[in-house]
Amino acid sequence: MHALVRELYPICRSITGDGVRATLARVQREIPLQVHEVPSGTPAFDWTVPREWNIRDAWVKNPRGERVIDFRRHNLHVVSYSVPVRARMTLEQLRPHLHSLPQQPDLIPYRTSYYREDWGFCLAHRDLESLPEGEYEVCIDSTLADGHLTYGECFLAGTSRDDVLFSCHVCHPSLCNDNLSGIAVATFLAKALAAAPRRLSYRFLFIPGTIGSITWLSRHEEQARRIRHGLVLTGIGDAGAFTYKASRRGDAAIDTAVRHVLRHADPGHAWRPFSPYGYDERQYCSPGFNLPVGCLMRTPHGEYPQYHTSGDNPDFVHAGQLAGSLRALLAIADVLEHDATYRNTQPMCEPQLGKRGLYGAMGGNGIRDLEMAMLWVLNLSDGGASLLAIAERSGLPFGTIHAAARLLLAHGLLAPQGENTALRQ
Amino acid sequence: MHALVRELYPICRSITGDGVRATLARVQREIPLQVHEVPSGTPAFDWTVPREWNIRDAWVKNPRGERVIDFRRHNLHVVSYSVPVRARMTLEQLRPHLHSLPQQPDLIPYRTSYYREDWGFCLAHRDLESLPEGEYEVCIDSTLADGHLTYGECFLAGTSRDDVLFSCHVCHPSLCNDNLSGIAVATFLAKALAAAPRRLSYRFLFIPGTIGSITWLSRHEEQARRIRHGLVLTGIGDAGAFTYKASRRGDAAIDTAVRHVLRHADPGHAWRPFSPYGYDERQYCSPGFNLPVGCLMRTPHGEYPQYHTSGDNPDFVHAGQLAGSLRALLAIADVLEHDATYRNTQPMCEPQLGKRGLYGAMGGNGIRDLEMAMLWVLNLSDGGASLLAIAERSGLPFGTIHAAARLLLAHGLLAPQGENTALRQ
Amino acid sequence: MHALVRELYPICRSITGDGVRATLARVQREIPLQVHEVPSGTPAFDWTVPREWNIRDAWVKNPRGERVIDFRRHNLHVVSYSVPVRARMTLEQLRPHLHSLPQQPDLIPYRTSYYREDWGFCLAHRDLESLPEGEYEVCIDSTLADGHLTYGECFLAGTSRDDVLFSCHVCHPSLCNDNLSGIAVATFLAKALAAAPRRLSYRFLFIPGTIGSITWLSRHEEQARRIRHGLVLTGIGDAGAFTYKASRRGDAAIDTAVRHVLRHADPGHAWRPFSPYGYDERQYCSPGFNLPVGCLMRTPHGEYPQYHTSGDNPDFVHAGQLAGSLRALLAIADVLEHDATYRNTQPMCEPQLGKRGLYGAMGGNGIRDLEMAMLWVLNLSDGGASLLAIAERSGLPFGTIHAAARLLLAHGLLAPQGENTALRQ
Repeated sequence: MHALVRELYPICRSITGDGVRATLARVQREIPLQVHEVPSGTPAFDWTVPREWNIRDAWVKNPRGERVIDFRRHNLHVVSYSVPVRARMTLEQLRPHLHSLPQQPDLIPYRTSYYREDWGFCLAHRDLESLPEGEYEVCIDSTLADGHLTYGECFLAGTSRDDVLFSCHVCHPSLCNDNLSGIAVATFLAKALAAAPRRLSYRFLFIPGTIGSITWLSRHEEQARRIRHGLVLTGIGDAGAFTYKASRRGDAAIDTAVRHVLRHADPGHAWRPFSPYGYDERQYCSPGFNLPVGCLMRTPHGEYPQYHTSGDNPDFVHAGQLAGSLRALLAIADVLEHDATYRNTQPMCEPQLGKRGLYGAMGGNGIRDLEMAMLWVLNLSDGGASLLAIAERSGLPFGTIHAAARLLLAHGLLAPQGENTALRQ
Repeated sequence: MHALVRELYPICRSITGDGVRATLARVQREIPLQVHEVPSGTPAFDWTVPREWNIRDAWVKNPRGERVIDFRRHNLHVVSYSVPVRARMTLEQLRPHLHSLPQQPDLIPYRTSYYREDWGFCLAHRDLESLPEGEYEVCIDSTLADGHLTYGECFLAGTSRDDVLFSCHVCHPSLCNDNLSGIAVATFLAKALAAAPRRLSYRFLFIPGTIGSITWLSRHEEQARRIRHGLVLTGIGDAGAFTYKASRRGDAAIDTAVRHVLRHADPGHAWRPFSPYGYDERQYCSPGFNLPVGCLMRTPHGEYPQYHTSGDNPDFVHAGQLAGSLRALLAIADVLEHDATYRNTQPMCEPQLGKRGLYGAMGGNGIRDLEMAMLWVLNLSDGGASLLAIAERSGLPFGTIHAAARLLLAHGLLAPQGENTALRQ
Repeated sequence: MHALVRELYPICRSITGDGVRATLARVQREIPLQVHEVPSGTPAFDWTVPREWNIRDAWVKNPRGERVIDFRRHNLHVVSYSVPVRARMTLEQLRPHLHSLPQQPDLIPYRTSYYREDWGFCLAHRDLESLPEGEYEVCIDSTLADGHLTYGECFLAGTSRDDVLFSCHVCHPSLCNDNLSGIAVATFLAKALAAAPRRLSYRFLFIPGTIGSITWLSRHEEQARRIRHGLVLTGIGDAGAFTYKASRRGDAAIDTAVRHVLRHADPGHAWRPFSPYGYDERQYCSPGFNLPVGCLMRTPHGEYPQYHTSGDNPDFVHAGQLAGSLRALLAIADVLEHDATYRNTQPMCEPQLGKRGLYGAMGGNGIRDLEMAMLWVLNLSDGGASLLAIAERSGLPFGTIHAAARLLLAHGLLAPQGENTALRQ
């Protein structure tokens, strides 16, 4: 995954354009990804698909004709969606178009102007301060014209038509945690799920932020209604512990599943209630949809100094952290796949596990986790609690509870309870 | 307000009598106060309006004829509702009628005997101990006779007939925090509300404790049923942080409104559940009424050493604290006035705030409170949450949420949801 | 109670056999106990009453013919339910049958093999290590044959047929806290309750663990459905604070009653949620029964080093702790007996307590607990809250609330509300 991050890093992405296409083409080499193109001007609820932006070069030359700001050195140097410019001007005239971070003088900030025509350059504050007075030459060789919004979709059908959504934004240029980490983990998660038998169906969306999810939702309302669980994946490669931002509902099955897995996988994880600011969960959780979609991150956006700066480079994300994120997501998918509500077939007192070889014969010295898990499953399987609920109440990991349930099913002590109602929301 | 406290301080009030009348006459110079007189003997539920008590003078003279206890020096010296007395007796015979505080030897305690005929004097323990043996002369020049119970009422009609009750007791003699502070703040709160447009109607009661609220309730059951929110105001001038004692319901709108305002106004505030001891909330929250009435205080009764002693003098209350109490009450009234439930007119995904000039055009560097408030209002305005509930869930102050709602209403992104159901309890 | 513990200590009990009979015979001298015998082979839900086990002697002789392990010195030396054995073998052949505790080298462990035919000895690890190589002679003079499972039952009828269950296991050999403490306290609790008037009926079960409760439940389903409240009593003589393990329901009246009593009686007590491992609450709380039965302990099983070892001897339980457990149980029974829901007959404002002599005449200096309790009972007795709920909300002990209710009843200010619905579960 880290190799994929490094490979995608130099590409200049935005909410439209060839950078997104190149990124999706690379992902397509790993998983069966359908790439969709939506024409500029297409209405999407209150929004309109914007014109397509592409850029070839951009620079500012100082009075001596040297490129003091150069898009080719770092694509963060140009404000995303800058209109074409070719002009000479004094430093004073240029200044309103220059963005820097006085508090972090060595880092280039990331700025965008998607929905108001503008142009600008971003640069390290130290470099800004070293610019002498004089006449500068400015060039932005971009095009902003009717074209398309591009997004990728990978659908892995399961035996049921209960869908799980994983969504990641692909619109950020050379920024690694935000969100090449999400792209890389989503890609390898899809690869792993594609290789295994599935009850649930999985839909992966690789979309530009905000306009991408709004466009998809506006054209797929019926499919959206089938989403039973969903996660936005973003910023999951940095060195921090997990942060989970709950769905708007707050108590959806995905919220419980994620909390359960993180409790056992990452004692330092943080749980945050939903808020309407952040990533595309804003759209999935808008009141007209209110989908059970949370957001899995490590350090949240805006809470690390490298956020939205050139400091968010390949060194800021770690192979081990990406792998840990993938492991947690596979464990979450395992919970979603296997959670179910069963019925204890012998509910009057405990059944005698010992005579079935399921319980230690020598008494007096305690109990093992798997035995404990069997007692919990038997005790709580009277119609209400699903395996996940039992795992939560018992404090045991879902895997142990699931293993106990399989043993009890094999011995006829447990029976299916019909549908998986607990996770049907 | 502090000037009013100082002006009212010398008056000897009790649950009936001319001290209450003089107090209400002074309040009447500030606000349109109706003064009511209820005859002695009038039944009030399980109670009866008592005889009226008035006092002109009272003293104890030592064997040398010197006034060693003198009502004219401090009206706390006489047990309230003392029957007339004129007698000579030894110190031993006098002692059962003398009340002091051995633990606070310099302070005069406050004692009453409203419902059992008795008489007595209160004095500093140090003074009690210095009394020599010998014959004393005792005089209480009081009258206890059929008359009236007096209370004041100020009603400020709003456009709706949902009433807000503010109640304060006017029966304590020279004690400032308890409750000249409540009287002064209620007076100036009424003055401020009278000067502004109002949706709600406001009823201010200036009543003797217990018998006053019981009398009012027994004669105004219909009006009582119209009370949607209410606060007893008492002890709100001392140097302490706010203490709010919740209504019996515990989750009434007034409880939420007060908690919200105090959370933002006074981080040191304390919240206490209802208990059936305290002030007139005991009656408003009796099970037959169960009105949504809480009690706003600073340091609670009995928890400061000056409580019910001569230490509760004009120096014990502070102009700044009275002003802070008034500010908090105005903020609470603002919440009650403007809380409402709206409907997001574009609930499918977020509407595009940017094209309406409601959202910063330059992306990548965070969000302002007002923008955040708009996102919250849009996200949660799908029928359930009122603005106050949104303020609570978002952590933003009600004022910011209200401002955001006004902006969204102006742009047609929000619509009225009919009645203010959230606060209708 | 400690004398009874010491008297029962030497008896070798197991889940069946003469040790149980001797124990019950001794209890029968204190209370009206019915002893029941259920034949081996009787089905009990998924279980079968096992063969009866009795033992006369058991020993291991070393190569010099000395008894190095001797049942007559301590009955823990033999694995309970060991089949008869008479053999000579080397130490190596013997070793798999020897159980010790390397971490606690001076203590004999307690081991059982009820449901798999086996035999074995338990000994101090220090003694095990001192055994020289050579040929050993082994004798277990036991019988395992068709017979009976024996249990005791004491039923104290009350005026209602709402039953309270107290259950204790009688199957452990020379172990004091586990569970001679439970047996002794249950015996004296029955004795005390038998001597007093009762509204509720009380059923005491003295049964072998697991198979005993399963057998009783399988033969008394109708009686089981009458159990309104129940407690398993175990390990309540050690020096620790109380631990209460809640019923499976978690919010049954017994849970509230125990929590209330322990909060006032033992500030150091601990409260644990239900888990399906432990004592006979496992069976009472199996999903087919789901009875409101909790478990009262002091230090929980497995959490003291003497647990299930020879260290759990008469010195490990304390007369004062047994007495404290009995006191707490009597207080719990008092709550269950007297909890009821009443109706305030004068719900409009407070009734005037003073004119009835129920309230201090001198005002201004605070309130006593009993007055406070009357205010709470009056305020909350509007149909919903029982006395126990009022005690919980007020923070006052049930006894004070109950005393207040009796006073108010006597003055006609309170009336019965029909049935005790709060505790009917």
